[in-house]
Amino acid sequence: MNNVDAVRDYLKGLQARIVAACAEVDGTAFLRDSWKKGKGELLQGDGITMILEDGKVFERAGCGFSHVVGPRLPPSATQHRPELAGSGFEALGVSLVFHPRNPYAPTVHMNVRMLAALPGEGEPVFWFGGGMDLTPCYGFEEDAVSFHSACKAALEPFGRDKYPRFKTWCDEYFFLKHRDEQRGIGGIFFDDFAEGGFLNGFAMIRSVGDAFLGAYLPILKARKDMPYGERERGFQLYRRGRYVEFNLVWDRGTHFGLQSGGRAESILMSMPPLASWAYQRPTRRGSPEDDLYRKFLVRRDWI
Amino acid sequence: MNNVDAVRDYLKGLQARIVAACAEVDGTAFLRDSWKKGKGELLQGDGITMILEDGKVFERAGCGFSHVVGPRLPPSATQHRPELAGSGFEALGVSLVFHPRNPYAPTVHMNVRMLAALPGEGEPVFWFGGGMDLTPCYGFEEDAVSFHSACKAALEPFGRDKYPRFKTWCDEYFFLKHRDEQRGIGGIFFDDFAEGGFLNGFAMIRSVGDAFLGAYLPILKARKDMPYGERERGFQLYRRGRYVEFNLVWDRGTHFGLQSGGRAESILMSMPPLASWAYQRPTRRGSPEDDLYRKFLVRRDWI
Repeated sequence: MNNVDAVRDYLKGLQARIVAACAEVDGTAFLRDSWKKGKGELLQGDGITMILEDGKVFERAGCGFSHVVGPRLPPSATQHRPELAGSGFEALGVSLVFHPRNPYAPTVHMNVRMLAALPGEGEPVFWFGGGMDLTPCYGFEEDAVSFHSACKAALEPFGRDKYPRFKTWCDEYFFLKHRDEQRGIGGIFFDDFAEGGFLNGFAMIRSVGDAFLGAYLPILKARKDMPYGERERGFQLYRRGRYVEFNLVWDRGTHFGLQSGGRAESILMSMPPLASWAYQRPTRRGSPEDDLYRKFLVRRDWI
Repeated sequence: MNNVDAVRDYLKGLQARIVAACAEVDGTAFLRDSWKKGKGELLQGDGITMILEDGKVFERAGCGFSHVVGPRLPPSATQHRPELAGSGFEALGVSLVFHPRNPYAPTVHMNVRMLAALPGEGEPVFWFGGGMDLTPCYGFEEDAVSFHSACKAALEPFGRDKYPRFKTWCDEYFFLKHRDEQRGIGGIFFDDFAEGGFLNGFAMIRSVGDAFLGAYLPILKARKDMPYGERERGFQLYRRGRYVEFNLVWDRGTHFGLQSGGRAESILMSMPPLASWAYQRPTRRGSPEDDLYRKFLVRRDWI
């Protein structure tokens, strides 16, 4: 089996495992939508979109696998590696965003991906990327600590430097500059990772992917049945507006995907089921909502 | 009174007139928030944000005046006019987006603006821009015809070519490429307008601004009390998701404003109060929801 096939197999299995575990927590099956593009289009590829809407635990939970093949790398990908200019490429990944119904249960995002450049002559080159991050509406220190600990443990076998670097990268990436506000309590994020070659990079995204359920499900299970009322629901809808703002204004994958003809419904699986906006929504000093901004949506060392 | 002062006076008066008329329709006053920026920042300026939230007729209605002064035009503004490179500038405008509560009443957007380049030597140069466009959830042919007729009448004194040109421009601008869908039924849009100099451009944006209430209020009044239920409300929230997508992904003013440090709460007055997303939301063939896509969200000559 070649490298791309091995990654493809892993990713499809990862998607199936995550979706099965989350369907069990919810008591509702995900909808499964396979798609194919190509035949005359510049990018060819296929994917499996899996989505659960209006569940008991998840108000909207999307998990997608995609594999696209292109005839030549875009110039932005090869500016530091001119020897690969014009190479064919393949890009594979699993990406998920889960929006729970309960305002005390945090939204979560996870992604693992590989980009392979296939020059006409010479060996293929592989880059890996991914990470996971948590976006609560109501902050719990123990959740932030346990989530970051799981992220750190997943990266530990690949060098002590990885967690601190990728934690900082995550804080820098998931930042709403126009609000001067972090999207959530962070986690890990990395891109263009090629250290140690294919085997090391593939092992690292496997470690991150395999760590996801253990990082998220205990938090979800602890929060999903907490009692809440209109106040918490209102704040959740408002905070989800920020999630929309980040994804549509700042997230390079979303923005580039939509502008370059990606599959809109799959890309926009990350959108919340319902979100609100209000002008200068006030928060009372010392309230849990105020705590979110002051204690959680800031860069902080959680471990 | 110099040219900039004259435009400023007109724009502030326009904002006050529009807001007063809409507050009367709603029975609710707009909140008024004056702001100033500057003192050490690159852009200086001031503005008045007026917003009505949770009214009887308007669920969220924002109308802003702003006036910013900068030390030098950005390179994108002078690439075709190198003689103005590095000139100081002033930008003034009124911009509004009104989201009514009733799903049968359309969302509306209007904007009029002027950009003045102030070279160290030589005369100032003025460009004008603006327009208005309508975004229904449920289409009514008579509303589209009356709205476009009002737009056409406002431009008639400035040449027969203006309405067809600016109508086409509007269709091209308010287009969601990732959905292959128009934002709404269009209207007029123009930018970088300098034909006939300051007096002609100023007269044109006055004519457009002055036409707004006559174009929109009759439609609003005809629709605001139509009976509706959960079905229409659900479709309205879903369609508002598209409005968010357009503004955050494609609207140059919004995107550039947020990325370049504009005042987020004023820029995002255009966001709906509540919006939803759903995966491949179905519409029944021949239903009013299906009609919207097939008969209204397409490029069409309404007059």
